[in-house]
Amino acid sequence: MTKSVFYHAGCPVCISAEHDIISLIGEKNVEIVHLGEQKIRIGEAEAIGVKSVPALITPNGNVLHINFGASMADVKG
Amino acid sequence: MTKSVFYHAGCPVCISAEHDIISLIGEKNVEIVHLGEQKIRIGEAEAIGVKSVPALITPNGNVLHINFGASMADVKG
Repeated sequence: MTKSVFYHAGCPVCISAEHDIISLIGEKNVEIVHLGEQKIRIGEAEAIGVKSVPALITPNGNVLHINFGASMADVKG
Repeated sequence: MTKSVFYHAGCPVCISAEHDIISLIGEKNVEIVHLGEQKIRIGEAEAIGVKSVPALITPNGNVLHINFGASMADVKG
């Protein structure tokens, strides 16, 4: 299976969702990307359709926005 | 592992997310509840903290609201 990608920005909602997602689908099946620390990847996330974080991109490219931590505008600061 | 519970109401956003969740965590690990067809379970969902559907309840009780299909008020109709 291709990996999923989990985008977050370090917010409490993000961290909580990160733990849940890792627990549900397994750490080896998901790449964790902290957009606050890897701002170079913000453009990639937006191109995929990420509107807010935390967000999980499934292996087939669907974007699942999970709860609401911060908008991409907030992430770009 | 205790099962997760996925609450939805048959909306397009719900169905798409249902496929994604089943694909990610496996059909045997999640109970699917259609609140439009099982209105008796709306109270249970609200008590757990479900504000909108689709929503996934993790085995440890966290509520993950995934994208946005309909509010619980809409579901109650």
